[in-house]
Amino acid sequence: MANPDSAPFRVASIGLGRWAKVIGDGATRSPRLQIVSCFTRDADKRAAFAGSYGCRQAESLEALLADSEVEGVMITTPNDTHADLIIRAAEAGKHVYTEKPISNSIEDAYRIVDACQKGGVRLAVGHSARQLGPVRKIRQMMEDGTLGDVSLVEANFSNDRGLELTPDRWRWFKDKSPGGPLIQLAVHHVDTLQGLFGPIQNVSAQLRRLYTSAEVDDLAVLICSFERGPVAYIGTSWSTAGVYSINVYGSGGAAFYQADFSHWSAGDTDSYSSLQFQARDSFERRPVTFEQVDMYRAELEDWADAARSGRDPEVSGPEATSALAVVWAAIQSSETGQTVTVQQRDSA
Amino acid sequence: MANPDSAPFRVASIGLGRWAKVIGDGATRSPRLQIVSCFTRDADKRAAFAGSYGCRQAESLEALLADSEVEGVMITTPNDTHADLIIRAAEAGKHVYTEKPISNSIEDAYRIVDACQKGGVRLAVGHSARQLGPVRKIRQMMEDGTLGDVSLVEANFSNDRGLELTPDRWRWFKDKSPGGPLIQLAVHHVDTLQGLFGPIQNVSAQLRRLYTSAEVDDLAVLICSFERGPVAYIGTSWSTAGVYSINVYGSGGAAFYQADFSHWSAGDTDSYSSLQFQARDSFERRPVTFEQVDMYRAELEDWADAARSGRDPEVSGPEATSALAVVWAAIQSSETGQTVTVQQRDSA
Repeated sequence: MANPDSAPFRVASIGLGRWAKVIGDGATRSPRLQIVSCFTRDADKRAAFAGSYGCRQAESLEALLADSEVEGVMITTPNDTHADLIIRAAEAGKHVYTEKPISNSIEDAYRIVDACQKGGVRLAVGHSARQLGPVRKIRQMMEDGTLGDVSLVEANFSNDRGLELTPDRWRWFKDKSPGGPLIQLAVHHVDTLQGLFGPIQNVSAQLRRLYTSAEVDDLAVLICSFERGPVAYIGTSWSTAGVYSINVYGSGGAAFYQADFSHWSAGDTDSYSSLQFQARDSFERRPVTFEQVDMYRAELEDWADAARSGRDPEVSGPEATSALAVVWAAIQSSETGQTVTVQQRDSA
Repeated sequence: MANPDSAPFRVASIGLGRWAKVIGDGATRSPRLQIVSCFTRDADKRAAFAGSYGCRQAESLEALLADSEVEGVMITTPNDTHADLIIRAAEAGKHVYTEKPISNSIEDAYRIVDACQKGGVRLAVGHSARQLGPVRKIRQMMEDGTLGDVSLVEANFSNDRGLELTPDRWRWFKDKSPGGPLIQLAVHHVDTLQGLFGPIQNVSAQLRRLYTSAEVDDLAVLICSFERGPVAYIGTSWSTAGVYSINVYGSGGAAFYQADFSHWSAGDTDSYSSLQFQARDSFERRPVTFEQVDMYRAELEDWADAARSGRDPEVSGPEATSALAVVWAAIQSSETGQTVTVQQRDSA
């Protein structure tokens, strides 16, 4: 019998919508994961997914969680269903990958983290963006001194989803997608920037419902202060062209990173991204080369390796809960007109 | 005798430091202005300026203001000296161009505006940036519908001045340069964006003193809400590379404008700027052509024409006072941790 640690990590997909394919394709691109089963309530969608990925299909969630071949589940259901699914998976001893945000409410995030700890399973949360090649390169440019002392960070993640929402989509509703593009898009930047610059201490924010027909806000503008000193602007509009950018301003110079959002889902985003550096004493922006990373494959391999070796994935419960806490601090700041301290769990 | 309205507008420079040359050169590039005199207390600097610009020099401010040939004065002294100089000039019946900000304090701004009104002279304030070609083009792209409904605006004006300050410079001191790069650099964006999007209603901001040795802050990050709905981020760091950018996100697409700060002083900034447009349904950023404007010449010609015709210049007392009110709202917001309503004079 082969060493089980060198065999692919056997996973099952739960919630088989558009994003299940993005994540499923990421798993398929890796020799270290194998999709062995899937489940969603709709039998036709289930059969189609099983056919596409050459895996079994479970007739019920109970059956899937009772399948001893399944080591981990990949959850791409709506935000507000994460907690119950993850808790059941953890109780069944299955490792869990879930889409971001970890949940809509902080209370659910705590329940998720506690259940995974109790079940002895490894939780990874799909803040894939921190895996991107230019993000890693920016970290390296901080560590090798190229950027010097960082004062200001700018990050924007926008698209026109808010103008296309209809009431048959869960993102239309405030209770299912609180903060709109803030919890769906900008939460990526919150995690990526906390990965680069450490914990965000407090947030000032303004959210607006401007042009969407949906219940949710379609604009959020945040000022995030890091404990270490720098301050970040994070902006997200749900009623404009597709944009994904991060700029980092340091005393050594400034880095400008921009991805082509039309390639966001395919795993080859880095092939359509640019990273430039402008030294402090220069006005020329020179291209910077970076290693191209398949962000979905990378985060799933990190999860599989973590599950097999018993370590925590790079973005696990605490990191994802912290990103969610920043989202809620922003919502509270916008409602109260006050700068809000981010509640970290151990300080709560 | 020639028609006096077609003869050049006769001006004198007051405060003959580095910026007097930038403005003096702008006047020299226009056939509609003529520098006829100058004054600063230092006799050597005065003689050098008079020699460079082929103008007379006044032995005292009194003498300059008594010179009946002088129609207007161009003031480039430190912020906190503007009010007394402008009030004296207005009392002498001289039209006034002053550098931005109009003053450090709102009270001084009111005194300035009242004195100019009482003296029947036209006041122009050097928020030159709203004259720039790409700014005018963005306005056109709003008016012709290209940008659609604007939700989000981003503006950054940064350089490394904070790292180079020494105590012999007035910008070192908090009482002479409150807000540091906010009142020196970002105030341009405040005016330009109010010119494009109308009055800013309220401000959330965080200011920091991070890396400068000076007394002043070297970082400011603002969220500015416009009465009309859109929200802007304005950022300024005084400890990084030179950056000047404005991005406008609308439902029709997004405009990205970037100037090369090394060409900020020469009047040919527009020759080194780029403006791009990304349509909402596209991910390609196409170059947009714009008319190149010499911003210093343009603002001075606007002032001269206003003085001759008895109209207000494009950026006069009310506009500049409003920009200063946003600066002080930001300082207050940072100190109190609260969103601050901008005090407009007529609502005070």
